[in-house]
Amino acid sequence: MNPWSATACAATPAQTRNVAAKPASDLRIDPGRLMSRLSALAEIGPIEGGGSCRLALTDDDKQGRDRVVGWMCEQGLQVSVDRIGNVFGLRPGTEALAPVMTGSHIDTVRTGGRYDGNLGVLAGLEVMATLDAAGLATRRPLVVAFFTNEEGARFAPDMLGSLVYAGGLSLEEGLAAIAIDGKALGAELDRIGYAGTAPVPLYRPHAFVELHIEQGPVLDAEGITIGAVENLQGISWQELTIAGQSNHAGTTPMRLRHDAGYCAAAIATFLRGLARDMGGAQVCTVGRIDLVPNLINVIAARATLTADLRNTDESMLRAAEGRLDDFLATLARDEGVTIRARRLARFEPVAFDGRIIGCIERVASALGYTSRRMTSGAGHDAQMLSRMCPTAMIFVPSVKGISHNPAEHTAPADLAAGANVLLQTILELADENQAPAGGRA
Amino acid sequence: MNPWSATACAATPAQTRNVAAKPASDLRIDPGRLMSRLSALAEIGPIEGGGSCRLALTDDDKQGRDRVVGWMCEQGLQVSVDRIGNVFGLRPGTEALAPVMTGSHIDTVRTGGRYDGNLGVLAGLEVMATLDAAGLATRRPLVVAFFTNEEGARFAPDMLGSLVYAGGLSLEEGLAAIAIDGKALGAELDRIGYAGTAPVPLYRPHAFVELHIEQGPVLDAEGITIGAVENLQGISWQELTIAGQSNHAGTTPMRLRHDAGYCAAAIATFLRGLARDMGGAQVCTVGRIDLVPNLINVIAARATLTADLRNTDESMLRAAEGRLDDFLATLARDEGVTIRARRLARFEPVAFDGRIIGCIERVASALGYTSRRMTSGAGHDAQMLSRMCPTAMIFVPSVKGISHNPAEHTAPADLAAGANVLLQTILELADENQAPAGGRA
Repeated sequence: MNPWSATACAATPAQTRNVAAKPASDLRIDPGRLMSRLSALAEIGPIEGGGSCRLALTDDDKQGRDRVVGWMCEQGLQVSVDRIGNVFGLRPGTEALAPVMTGSHIDTVRTGGRYDGNLGVLAGLEVMATLDAAGLATRRPLVVAFFTNEEGARFAPDMLGSLVYAGGLSLEEGLAAIAIDGKALGAELDRIGYAGTAPVPLYRPHAFVELHIEQGPVLDAEGITIGAVENLQGISWQELTIAGQSNHAGTTPMRLRHDAGYCAAAIATFLRGLARDMGGAQVCTVGRIDLVPNLINVIAARATLTADLRNTDESMLRAAEGRLDDFLATLARDEGVTIRARRLARFEPVAFDGRIIGCIERVASALGYTSRRMTSGAGHDAQMLSRMCPTAMIFVPSVKGISHNPAEHTAPADLAAGANVLLQTILELADENQAPAGGRA
Repeated sequence: MNPWSATACAATPAQTRNVAAKPASDLRIDPGRLMSRLSALAEIGPIEGGGSCRLALTDDDKQGRDRVVGWMCEQGLQVSVDRIGNVFGLRPGTEALAPVMTGSHIDTVRTGGRYDGNLGVLAGLEVMATLDAAGLATRRPLVVAFFTNEEGARFAPDMLGSLVYAGGLSLEEGLAAIAIDGKALGAELDRIGYAGTAPVPLYRPHAFVELHIEQGPVLDAEGITIGAVENLQGISWQELTIAGQSNHAGTTPMRLRHDAGYCAAAIATFLRGLARDMGGAQVCTVGRIDLVPNLINVIAARATLTADLRNTDESMLRAAEGRLDDFLATLARDEGVTIRARRLARFEPVAFDGRIIGCIERVASALGYTSRRMTSGAGHDAQMLSRMCPTAMIFVPSVKGISHNPAEHTAPADLAAGANVLLQTILELADENQAPAGGRA
């Protein structure tokens, strides 16, 4: 039996009362309540510097889940846990229509901040608490969700829970995923009591909206409060392994070298030039380089590096991959080395729903916030949900773009602004009769 | 008291007899005896693949020292150990003149081969054994030496024993050198019984000649047996530390990056281009790169890399250093990072003695061996001895240039050829009345 059935929640649902004293467009979330819950969640799995470490399905993640489920119950939501451990809190609507879903994740990387993921989940709860306090019912049911293993810091792939939810990975494969510590995901769900019984997918949403910190510097640098996320970069990850020949750095003439270390450097330099040449949305990063034997006076025998290429346009991303392939072939021939490429990840770009993006912009403007359309450079659960329903995202600024770091910070006023935009966007979507008619952005 | 005083050796000195039955120029070393001693020494501190690990002043090094000193005693040499642990075996001459010295080192790197250093010491002993067997006396005394901590794999700097011997480092500083395992060199000399009492320097040689494997690919690639080493590269070692800013690889626009990893790659690529542009004897190597946090999707916050620049010409080496400095300044400004350079080593190029080089070439030719003049890309004890007396080196081929590796190999015929060239060169120098008159090569 699902340990978090709706009947396990003792609080009286408030959401069916309809005693709204003022127009819905005047509603605002309670910033103090939101901040207090963000702090209470950050206290679980605390790390130095004020961040959290709650790797997916660890004891710390279980404690975090229990706390959020506890709040769902306090608010009288119908709590369900599905077979991949995704958790849903449903607030009924006045009509039997497909729900509007919001949410994100509460697992973190090892050096996680306080807001990445958590904001989207707790702001969803805050939206519902605000409606409860106002006695406001919505036509469509509302659901706040948190998805299993979004970060991918313990199990691969990342965004696993939402990927299974959207049908991109089978339930069996998801449950069989093996952690970096050797445990199977299914067994870990059992162990922490989150092997739910709800089917996958439990709901087919009318729309999905996710509020998230930007995790990049754009909004902070430009002094803009709200990002209306119109697309999400496609990602191409490869690990490149170069086999050269180790030799003495002093005695080996330049012309006789097969230097794996030089090749790694040449690839990283090439990718910087490629991003500059292509311009636009193309970004390229070599974040990891390992040389063997990695000694000052020995020409490297082997190098392993990673190539992270991203673009919002699939054809451009393919062009970048092709140019890298060509460069690797030339480099291997010229230097007399072998280069092996291993695909680590490949996601096509995602375009979010134009009508929801427009709604976010309109709402932000009505609330007096500056906003801009933008691209997400990070992966999010919303990209998986976009496979099954109209979807978009709301970003708020990350100071200096810092994320996956205890120093991750968003000003309280920006957190509240994002939650208010989420509230008004959800209210608009929840009153819709039909699926949004707008095309993809 | 010096534990290895001459009186400790029981064997009867043979070198004072003078019963030569054939001209000295017909003398040849005994390849079997040389190979047998090389094998016996390689058996101390054995490692997989047939090499040895005898880091300086470890128990394994002590065993190696004891074995070589045992052979010195068997041959009736006057053994002395100086205060920095250098060991000398003297074979008296017929006149009271400055000795001709040969030798090298018997310490190894962690993954040492059988011949690096050992060949020069054991071939020196073999030269004396050959003279003994022929009953041939020399005018000048002969000394075979092995110097403390040539490799620098346990204590810095490398070539420490010969550097102290030649007056380039004070005895006190040498004894205070701290090992990678925290022990002081002086204390380790005491511990293994090699804290000798002989003054530094014990002898002021008439000339020094060192036989060594090439540790590079030139002789092997060209099919030449003997290298007459005319100079030794100057070495410039720097550790470069780049402080950038860690950020998300997807969300950070290229123009806002301060990517320490890219800078490391750009430096390595620049140095390859610099060596190509300068041509000649200039070589540049980046053998070590370490990124932090070294993750696929994080722009590196910090990079540490090493720059190894070498040239046989000091003005060219300075020019290369200057061009690197200019590049670092431009790069730091363009990328918005800071780059800190730490000097790890700096040796000026060494030019060996022209007359001894000529002697080596003449002897090689008379013995029927092919030879060429060449540069040493590695550091050797001979470069220190060249500060105090006319010096040169004899190289024999390293198969494929492999060294500092158990796979290091030199054909037995080439080992014997090198030892015979050493024998005839020493005989010629030992009969000289005056110091060699020739200038620097």
